[in-house]
Amino acid sequence: MADEVILLDFWPSPFGMRLRIALAEKGIKYEYREEDLRNKSPLLLKMNPVHKKIPVLIHNGNPICESLVALQYIDEVWNHEAPLLPSDPYQRAQARFWADFIDKKIYDLGRKIWTEKGEEKEAAKKEFIGALKLLEEQLGDKAYFGGDNLGFVDVALIPFYTWFKGYAAFGNVDIDAECPKFIAWAKKCMQKESVSKSVPDQDKVYEFIVEIRKKLGIE
Amino acid sequence: MADEVILLDFWPSPFGMRLRIALAEKGIKYEYREEDLRNKSPLLLKMNPVHKKIPVLIHNGNPICESLVALQYIDEVWNHEAPLLPSDPYQRAQARFWADFIDKKIYDLGRKIWTEKGEEKEAAKKEFIGALKLLEEQLGDKAYFGGDNLGFVDVALIPFYTWFKGYAAFGNVDIDAECPKFIAWAKKCMQKESVSKSVPDQDKVYEFIVEIRKKLGIE
Repeated sequence: MADEVILLDFWPSPFGMRLRIALAEKGIKYEYREEDLRNKSPLLLKMNPVHKKIPVLIHNGNPICESLVALQYIDEVWNHEAPLLPSDPYQRAQARFWADFIDKKIYDLGRKIWTEKGEEKEAAKKEFIGALKLLEEQLGDKAYFGGDNLGFVDVALIPFYTWFKGYAAFGNVDIDAECPKFIAWAKKCMQKESVSKSVPDQDKVYEFIVEIRKKLGIE
Repeated sequence: MADEVILLDFWPSPFGMRLRIALAEKGIKYEYREEDLRNKSPLLLKMNPVHKKIPVLIHNGNPICESLVALQYIDEVWNHEAPLLPSDPYQRAQARFWADFIDKKIYDLGRKIWTEKGEEKEAAKKEFIGALKLLEEQLGDKAYFGGDNLGFVDVALIPFYTWFKGYAAFGNVDIDAECPKFIAWAKKCMQKESVSKSVPDQDKVYEFIVEIRKKLGIE
């Protein structure tokens, strides 16, 4: 019997994009189901009763929640192709550390950039750029964080690039000028079909941010 | 050459305790170095320049930061004895999910219980007990989350039990009565030498919380 793989997702979610990219890298066919987050499906509530959040990967009826956990699951189950984590334990630990760093910093700081004002916005911008610079250092001279191929950190990080037009516009920050090496890496990732076909373009996400800002009553 | 293993830690840290327990379970000798968090050592700042936090595991000069990352590293490097993560990918994903849940809920809610007042404290208490009940469900009829032996979730969770006297006293909450199954599990864990010899007793942590509350100006 063929594997049944379903992804409960929401199109602008960087966390959902991670799983789309990983599944594309591995060449796994799956059914994509868009969720309405203001009217969550009974399936989502059943499959992720603890957090009630997307993305949820459902593999032969078994739910896997939390995107980094699901990324590792995908890497372990479909290990014949496009390994995401390296085999060396220390390199694996490093990859997990930086993916965790991305989870702790990039999403929250990015959100503050387009929702906060004044000092809080400025502090978030400064910390955001600082975080990108740390990631640039970590990238070094490699093509990807994973080396010659997309790895765990690349897949965890590249989805946020789709939000950069919004960060730049509402944060009034020139990320291209501040972090050229990061941008070069992102553009290289976007040239891969597994990435470009799995994520929305920046304009569409920008329009989404405009909508959310309206709903939140932010001028 | 024998492995050189150093642990930069701070005695009441539940995150540090995780690594002490894992190293004890695996029978790994290591040098414990207590950090003064108000005057961090040059070694800590060098080994964890990103977060500047304990615990840091240093293995043959290589630092591994973030306790769940270090737990997985320990499990992968010293894989001959006392496996923490199961071998089945789905069970591994489940263990990682619950360890992540503990990181997202237990520490922060516990801290709110002994630092907040009024409605915020009450809300934290309710959510804390709810989280413990979810963990009880997950434990089911097993001896440990890991089955017949301590596993990844047990090692991630049991350190917080050392803080329970403080949670109970300052939260005015009877955890024993609310979550008897959780308490029975915790007591079973504490009977293991790898745990009991790696963690401080509840009275000592309680006195530490009293001190911190004084410093924070909480009555």
